[in-house]
Amino acid sequence: MSVDINADRLWDSLMAMAEIGATEHGGSGRLALTELDAAARRLFTDWCEALGCSVRVDTLGNMFARREGAQPDLEPIAFGSHLDTQPLGGRFDGVLGVLAGLEVLRTVADAGITTQRPLMLVNWTNEEGSRFAPAMMASGAYAGVFTADYIRARTDRDGVRFDQALDAIGYTGDTPLGTPSFARFFELHIEQGPILEEQALEIGVVTGAQGARWYDITLTGQGVHAGTTPLSYRHDALVAASRLIDGLYRDALDNDPEAKITFGELEITSPSRNVAPGEVKLTLDLRHTSDARVAALEARVHRHLAAVGEALGVATEIDCIWDSPVVDFDADNIASVEASAKSRGYSYRRMMSGAGHDAVNVSKIRPTSMIFVPSRDGISHNEAEYSSPAQCAMGAQVLCDAVLDHADRV
Amino acid sequence: MSVDINADRLWDSLMAMAEIGATEHGGSGRLALTELDAAARRLFTDWCEALGCSVRVDTLGNMFARREGAQPDLEPIAFGSHLDTQPLGGRFDGVLGVLAGLEVLRTVADAGITTQRPLMLVNWTNEEGSRFAPAMMASGAYAGVFTADYIRARTDRDGVRFDQALDAIGYTGDTPLGTPSFARFFELHIEQGPILEEQALEIGVVTGAQGARWYDITLTGQGVHAGTTPLSYRHDALVAASRLIDGLYRDALDNDPEAKITFGELEITSPSRNVAPGEVKLTLDLRHTSDARVAALEARVHRHLAAVGEALGVATEIDCIWDSPVVDFDADNIASVEASAKSRGYSYRRMMSGAGHDAVNVSKIRPTSMIFVPSRDGISHNEAEYSSPAQCAMGAQVLCDAVLDHADRV
Repeated sequence: MSVDINADRLWDSLMAMAEIGATEHGGSGRLALTELDAAARRLFTDWCEALGCSVRVDTLGNMFARREGAQPDLEPIAFGSHLDTQPLGGRFDGVLGVLAGLEVLRTVADAGITTQRPLMLVNWTNEEGSRFAPAMMASGAYAGVFTADYIRARTDRDGVRFDQALDAIGYTGDTPLGTPSFARFFELHIEQGPILEEQALEIGVVTGAQGARWYDITLTGQGVHAGTTPLSYRHDALVAASRLIDGLYRDALDNDPEAKITFGELEITSPSRNVAPGEVKLTLDLRHTSDARVAALEARVHRHLAAVGEALGVATEIDCIWDSPVVDFDADNIASVEASAKSRGYSYRRMMSGAGHDAVNVSKIRPTSMIFVPSRDGISHNEAEYSSPAQCAMGAQVLCDAVLDHADRV
Repeated sequence: MSVDINADRLWDSLMAMAEIGATEHGGSGRLALTELDAAARRLFTDWCEALGCSVRVDTLGNMFARREGAQPDLEPIAFGSHLDTQPLGGRFDGVLGVLAGLEVLRTVADAGITTQRPLMLVNWTNEEGSRFAPAMMASGAYAGVFTADYIRARTDRDGVRFDQALDAIGYTGDTPLGTPSFARFFELHIEQGPILEEQALEIGVVTGAQGARWYDITLTGQGVHAGTTPLSYRHDALVAASRLIDGLYRDALDNDPEAKITFGELEITSPSRNVAPGEVKLTLDLRHTSDARVAALEARVHRHLAAVGEALGVATEIDCIWDSPVVDFDADNIASVEASAKSRGYSYRRMMSGAGHDAVNVSKIRPTSMIFVPSRDGISHNEAEYSSPAQCAMGAQVLCDAVLDHADRV
């Protein structure tokens, strides 16, 4: 029996939620633990309770809407994402995962289905990490990645603590952190990259998350006068940085095109138009689909760095400040997602997530996987973020199918 | 007859002047139009008047110490530099040119010489341009490069006008700008570059100043997520900037090693560690020894920029914001300097100045040239700036010889 979601209803809910914190250029700005976040939470609660679901809130504000199953003692099948956004964010990042989950609950209700296991829709607190860092905060605490005390004491730019802000909006719940438990977790999300669109695919069957390492690099040469120092006498730290950046980029494109290499920040110490830079600090973000390939990429960085330092007489320093190994999602979850896409006739591919998501945290304690839908032009964290009604609907349908596939397994 | 300067006396004067605004690490910080500048001016006046010289101050604070000649109606032979420094500057940049000029006056006085033409030692106001921009300010106004009104209205970071600051230290003189006139001008200066030291030479016979052009460059690609966007889909503005910088540097080293290319500032718009940069702004300073070679260098920049933009799908924009043609110094001045270095047995070479100097302004209205002495490690605008007593003395001796060579030509 095919249980079909309602594409229009899903889109209407997305657009209604987008009104809370709507921005000038068609996005949403709904920072975690603001009044706008509270408004979104109330709307979420209203919608869930209208379906007869009970909503619980844990001590960090994570929200769990439960639709009872025929066997209430079995652990629920959970799904969801987050309702907070970037300061000038889009209408889909996170929100789609929550409201597609709501659409699953509505669809099941309309069809008069009672699943064996309960269903549970989750709204994780502060995925974006824009106001309170780090990102994926409360799903991390739920999964034991962070302690609750660490999270509570985080402060925003104005010195407001996380727990104060959560109290202020009235969302410090009494459900103990780490509960309620669930059997599995699914998260639908926009891809936030260009691959599905470029390959004209409808569904990403997400098999895990890439490994990532972050580095701080300092290059120290000699700051000299632009007019008086011939090139051959210089130790220009910016030329060194440039050779490292472009050299590594070309090398990867030629030899390892799946590598992701990003120098996101670069700062010249005491920059001046007529001084050849003496010191440059830059950041490097490396990602790859296997830990071995991340390690190989790191070795490649060290080789380039040594060669550049040697050639230009520039001292080099590199520190790895963050190391996040590859995450593999649950094979049963992945199989359900893939089976749905296939049986629905959607075009799809298996892929890894390049970004971090709440599901990556949850996967550390429960069988988990994700579903991606295309992002127009690969754009996200931006008001221009867009996935079409049809694309959103296909993602929600796959979520619904995968959830129901597990909801009667007892 | 050989008239020899007193090396110890010169060094003592340099070290005495360096006490005014002495910095923690052995430099001097004596910004233009501060109380420290005033103290330096008073010491300068005292020293000059002790020799029987008259000191006049023009309306922008330029100071002219005149030692009378046998023929007072002939225009003087002038020489000098500036007493102001960078905020954390050295003890030699500018100061050496003034105090070596003082040593010339003292030497001539000791020798009981009366030259046919008067001699005139000049201290130009605000060469550095650190507190009030632009640099080489008052020599420029004297030479007609800037209007007096433009200079008077320049403000520092606190909104204080140039004319207010000059009044406050009591150095708004009544000598009209552009007077007193003089026949020729010589300026001794530290090289501020590594060439003389690297080539183990004692004197630079400066034949002119390089041409320079300044550019603002903007590269616009697409800011995308570090984790979700494969390299082949990116339009990374920092990779584009890096390819431009390193490509141009290598090209110049291979094909035009005398070219000077400096990217002194580089800024990523909204930098973030996990976003591939969408926009980068950078500055370029090009210098060369002939205008034709500056133009060829500019053409080379345009070729690289076009290639980089094309290869990476990045939009490029370049604006030339300053164009300073090559300056050729006076052949007679140069000949006197070279003749002195040769007859004194000093090792020397002809060279062009890479930096701007008061002499470059003065050369626009009077026969002018410069003398360089080595800078240790090529370092300047820095507390570590150093030229040895012997190096300073050789420069002062050449200045003395060149001045006397012209002082009796009537």
